[in-house]
Amino acid sequence: MKKLLICLILMTAAVGLSPEACAQTEATAVVETVVEQAEAGPAYPDYATFAETAGFALFTANNIWMMLSAALVFIMHLGFATVESGLTRAKNTTNILFKNVMVVCIGILTYAIAGFNLMYPGVDGGIFAFAGFGVQVGADAAAQVANLTSEYNVGYTYWTDFLFQAMFAATAATIVSGAVAERIKLGSFLVFATIFVGVAYPITGYWKWGNGWLNTMETPFYDFAGSTLVHSVGGWGALAGVLLLGPRFGKYIGGKMRPIPGHSMPLATIGVFLLWLGWFGFNGGSVLSADPSLTSLVLVTTCIAAAAGGVAAAMTSWVFLKKPDLSMALNGILAGLVGITAGADQMAAMSSAIIGIVAGVLVVFSVVFFDKIKVDDPVGAISVHLVCGIWGTLAVGLFGNLAGMAQIIAQLKGILSIGAFTFIFAFVLLLIIKALMGLRVGEEEEKEGLDIGEHGMEAYPNFQPLPER
Amino acid sequence: MKKLLICLILMTAAVGLSPEACAQTEATAVVETVVEQAEAGPAYPDYATFAETAGFALFTANNIWMMLSAALVFIMHLGFATVESGLTRAKNTTNILFKNVMVVCIGILTYAIAGFNLMYPGVDGGIFAFAGFGVQVGADAAAQVANLTSEYNVGYTYWTDFLFQAMFAATAATIVSGAVAERIKLGSFLVFATIFVGVAYPITGYWKWGNGWLNTMETPFYDFAGSTLVHSVGGWGALAGVLLLGPRFGKYIGGKMRPIPGHSMPLATIGVFLLWLGWFGFNGGSVLSADPSLTSLVLVTTCIAAAAGGVAAAMTSWVFLKKPDLSMALNGILAGLVGITAGADQMAAMSSAIIGIVAGVLVVFSVVFFDKIKVDDPVGAISVHLVCGIWGTLAVGLFGNLAGMAQIIAQLKGILSIGAFTFIFAFVLLLIIKALMGLRVGEEEEKEGLDIGEHGMEAYPNFQPLPER
Amino acid sequence: MKKLLICLILMTAAVGLSPEACAQTEATAVVETVVEQAEAGPAYPDYATFAETAGFALFTANNIWMMLSAALVFIMHLGFATVESGLTRAKNTTNILFKNVMVVCIGILTYAIAGFNLMYPGVDGGIFAFAGFGVQVGADAAAQVANLTSEYNVGYTYWTDFLFQAMFAATAATIVSGAVAERIKLGSFLVFATIFVGVAYPITGYWKWGNGWLNTMETPFYDFAGSTLVHSVGGWGALAGVLLLGPRFGKYIGGKMRPIPGHSMPLATIGVFLLWLGWFGFNGGSVLSADPSLTSLVLVTTCIAAAAGGVAAAMTSWVFLKKPDLSMALNGILAGLVGITAGADQMAAMSSAIIGIVAGVLVVFSVVFFDKIKVDDPVGAISVHLVCGIWGTLAVGLFGNLAGMAQIIAQLKGILSIGAFTFIFAFVLLLIIKALMGLRVGEEEEKEGLDIGEHGMEAYPNFQPLPER
Repeated sequence: MKKLLICLILMTAAVGLSPEACAQTEATAVVETVVEQAEAGPAYPDYATFAETAGFALFTANNIWMMLSAALVFIMHLGFATVESGLTRAKNTTNILFKNVMVVCIGILTYAIAGFNLMYPGVDGGIFAFAGFGVQVGADAAAQVANLTSEYNVGYTYWTDFLFQAMFAATAATIVSGAVAERIKLGSFLVFATIFVGVAYPITGYWKWGNGWLNTMETPFYDFAGSTLVHSVGGWGALAGVLLLGPRFGKYIGGKMRPIPGHSMPLATIGVFLLWLGWFGFNGGSVLSADPSLTSLVLVTTCIAAAAGGVAAAMTSWVFLKKPDLSMALNGILAGLVGITAGADQMAAMSSAIIGIVAGVLVVFSVVFFDKIKVDDPVGAISVHLVCGIWGTLAVGLFGNLAGMAQIIAQLKGILSIGAFTFIFAFVLLLIIKALMGLRVGEEEEKEGLDIGEHGMEAYPNFQPLPER
Repeated sequence: MKKLLICLILMTAAVGLSPEACAQTEATAVVETVVEQAEAGPAYPDYATFAETAGFALFTANNIWMMLSAALVFIMHLGFATVESGLTRAKNTTNILFKNVMVVCIGILTYAIAGFNLMYPGVDGGIFAFAGFGVQVGADAAAQVANLTSEYNVGYTYWTDFLFQAMFAATAATIVSGAVAERIKLGSFLVFATIFVGVAYPITGYWKWGNGWLNTMETPFYDFAGSTLVHSVGGWGALAGVLLLGPRFGKYIGGKMRPIPGHSMPLATIGVFLLWLGWFGFNGGSVLSADPSLTSLVLVTTCIAAAAGGVAAAMTSWVFLKKPDLSMALNGILAGLVGITAGADQMAAMSSAIIGIVAGVLVVFSVVFFDKIKVDDPVGAISVHLVCGIWGTLAVGLFGNLAGMAQIIAQLKGILSIGAFTFIFAFVLLLIIKALMGLRVGEEEEKEGLDIGEHGMEAYPNFQPLPER
Repeated sequence: MKKLLICLILMTAAVGLSPEACAQTEATAVVETVVEQAEAGPAYPDYATFAETAGFALFTANNIWMMLSAALVFIMHLGFATVESGLTRAKNTTNILFKNVMVVCIGILTYAIAGFNLMYPGVDGGIFAFAGFGVQVGADAAAQVANLTSEYNVGYTYWTDFLFQAMFAATAATIVSGAVAERIKLGSFLVFATIFVGVAYPITGYWKWGNGWLNTMETPFYDFAGSTLVHSVGGWGALAGVLLLGPRFGKYIGGKMRPIPGHSMPLATIGVFLLWLGWFGFNGGSVLSADPSLTSLVLVTTCIAAAAGGVAAAMTSWVFLKKPDLSMALNGILAGLVGITAGADQMAAMSSAIIGIVAGVLVVFSVVFFDKIKVDDPVGAISVHLVCGIWGTLAVGLFGNLAGMAQIIAQLKGILSIGAFTFIFAFVLLLIIKALMGLRVGEEEEKEGLDIGEHGMEAYPNFQPLPER
């Protein structure tokens, strides 16, 4: 019972408040916010009048689009969970699923506690303000609409804003999860993921999306939905992890690379389809409104790049690796998606096809290259998210509305500064974790599988496993 | 051929009409409704004028949100199908999938025939009025908008209303399915599910959502989206089923509990992610409009409770069961979701975190507790839906806008009255079914698996099964 | 490196342009379109004014619905991928997934290059105009709204239109994929799919939806969302393929049919649920606006037909095949969905129940019938999509608003003309492919499985397969 109490208190503390404090906070926060808002002056007329207007109908439509975009980005986490477990071995499946499930949960909570305010300092309250969620709207639907929006965004509610951003945040850590799979200690990964999502991601996010220095340069760095801010950030974290962990046992024997195929192609395929679906929200929602022209253009460029990436990777694998490789085709789709993400709103359909094709070719050679230099990335996360994230970010300077030398230089500034910060942050953080808790499971456990070692349970207890070849 | 005819006629009868009657009904019903509506006076101006107004744009936006919410609740049935089959053994997978597939189908049809009118008697026509669907709008899009809405709701169309409610209804029976898995006779379950969805669920639903006595008490019982009305109802049905069926063979040997792990962690994980996604519609749609402030607040409280529940259950299992248990983490997420459902629109984000944490801790101890007292619930449905459904309903009295002693008492009234009615209804119904058809498959069949026994087909005929340990 | 260059150039050519041409095209196309549009006269007032109106809010809402419908139709491709791989053997899983992944990609690209303009010639530019996507709107969100819509549709943007239609197009080829599974050569299938989606589908599509002769007859042929135009078209292609390929080895031994069960019931079930979900967009989006009455009516008829089809097929299999067959229940749901598709907006709920019931009964007997006459269709695609597609198209003349002899005749004209054209097209195309590349893999490869033969990789390398029985 004492154990239980301690557990409860610890977890309560973990979300930044004690139960007693809560009731009070709620009561006073409403009052405070109303006062603040009243002083600031309402961005809209009062709610009752407003609800009759065309503007309110549009506000509602925008908000629907953004909420559904958040839902679509949420389902990307299932996509990551299935694609990563599908592309690794059955003996590590429970572990990978556990990590991916936890990363979403931790990501949302961490972002609420600190990340949101760190990334958008203008929003409400300071860092650790629990996303300004002292504000309680609840049944009070007749409150000023101004109450529901934030300074930098008046197109949808504050809550929608938080949710959409929180779903994005968790993505960065999930990308790392795939690359370090099958050998990282569970506890060490969870500590890393928490700090990475809660601190590193919002800092570089702030540089651009929070109107930091990358956004206020003469020619601003451009990253529409996060080829760099989300995907490369995840990719740099992945690279740091892989370098510190080293390759899996049995991947390189006598200097020769041995392929370790994933255990379930259906899981991997389900994952990629769900990720593609989720990208409808990831890119479509990054318009930050339901603007008909921009949102639909973005969906078209996104889907054409994905399709082109898939075809290009399949053909490239067919020509160069002799057989059409399903996992390459799948990674090609993801490569096209990551590639278009930085400029999805700036491209003609044709340019998006080219960006996708290049990404699809690139990802195949990148996977082969990293295998050759003994950087063991089980799911190809570095090739997909880092390499194609860089490509996509550069492509903004090469194609579309913003193309030009000044933009190319701005893109390079963004890529390099964010890359340097994130890689060093992740590397140092992992070194500290290594010193304190260790980073890699023991050889015995790795061979037996992390499902038994870390969780004491198998993913498929009813089926006869094959001995490893 | 005669067999075929009988089959057809039976099934036609089952949906409440003969083919000949149908054409007529259609023709006359349109006329009748127009007349009725004209007499009642239109709630809106005529359609053509209305379509130009901001009100119509808002009506359209609300309707989109509600239709998509229905779609999201629909996909929860896939979530239930995968989580329940993932957490049970491979030899019963076909059976579980079949039950879950049938329950959605039966649920929709039953609700159309009787449930909808039973639950919302004011709506249109009487009980067994086939949801008032004599009304045919079809190509007649220029009909009065008043025609398209029901008395108790003018924010979206009558059809949307039915669909959203029908998707909810089927959920209650699906919850039972998991708890009674691996031993209940297929036919017996289907009869139970049909009557449970068609009669028991709408009756208690009427008490609150149909503006029955629980809604007209001095301090009305509050259950926003169904912690009690949907989840506990399912949970009480599950408890009745499990008590009458007894534990699975091999679960308790010599008085000692033997864990029977589920056969596929990926399926279980897919299920939980899809359920979480579906909850965007389950709770978000329960606002019954796309009201920007309320819907987005609800999504935030829902996701924070889910995340908190997942982390809490994972940590609790780590501390008390030695290893971080994936199925506990998954059930923790569901626990958080069930817990927040009763008050998702009444809570500050912080309160929702606490509600989720408590639910996550509770579900772990509840699963252990029911195992100890030999109530064998293969997927933990009773712990998730009944225990956390009660917790969530009570939480409305403890946190948020409605907190207070009067509300706590109102919540207890709802919990107890609905619990007593549902448990007794389910128990008696199952007793009758037991007497008439039997309830449990034979020992031989249970050992071999219900896939062969009930369906003559295996779920995974291409893989070597392991002998049971 | 030379190989790489050739590969790049080929693929670039494959999307219909060279990189150099692109930049230019972009620049000039914007200007041209603006000029064209100015000459044509704007359908709407200028964007800035329009954005303040109720009309714009409605335009935005409609566009949201159509974009989400496109997303839902997209996810049907995952549904097809899982249902087809679930209903076939584990040794051909990678191959089936690869085909389904490629078909979406190829379908989108092909439709962009040629299909869209072939099907809707009035739209913009001629055939091979890359969907008129020279038009670059991009950041230019203040452009005339007229710019964003097409002649035949002013309710949502041109991009949304393309995306929704492209997702439809790919469906036709995906249906074929299932029927020819486990024996067709990969390359041959991909060539067939490309030409089938790019040429055959848009031609018959044009006959009706592009306002061709079937639409301008005295009593126009009616096919709301594609029972004939999509599903039967796929079904006729499937029939042609199956007839030319012949049955799988081991399906008929000594004149007796031997059932070959699919390898994963969970995959098949996931697929059917996702297809049902996707049908919310397939039928709901075919309203071509978010019109509240029509869209919600369509969702109700769609879901009731699906539910009725599922129950009917389950009961039929229970009565006639002795045991309730899960794959029959699943195909029954699909049968109901295909059946209601032609008239989903014309039916009362009761009629849709009858249409679903008949489809559900029909599909069981059809599957048995085709097995008997040795037409080996591993997933039942011909029964579901062709037989029930015909049934659904006829049902428009039997039930609902359009019922009548003249309509029945119009429906027959559509069914026969489209059927004749598509079957002959597919048959001749496959004959040519057979002559040039061969159609069927060798006996050795078929027995070993196409995963090894065509892709050199297994779908489940970690599990012990059972020898085939």
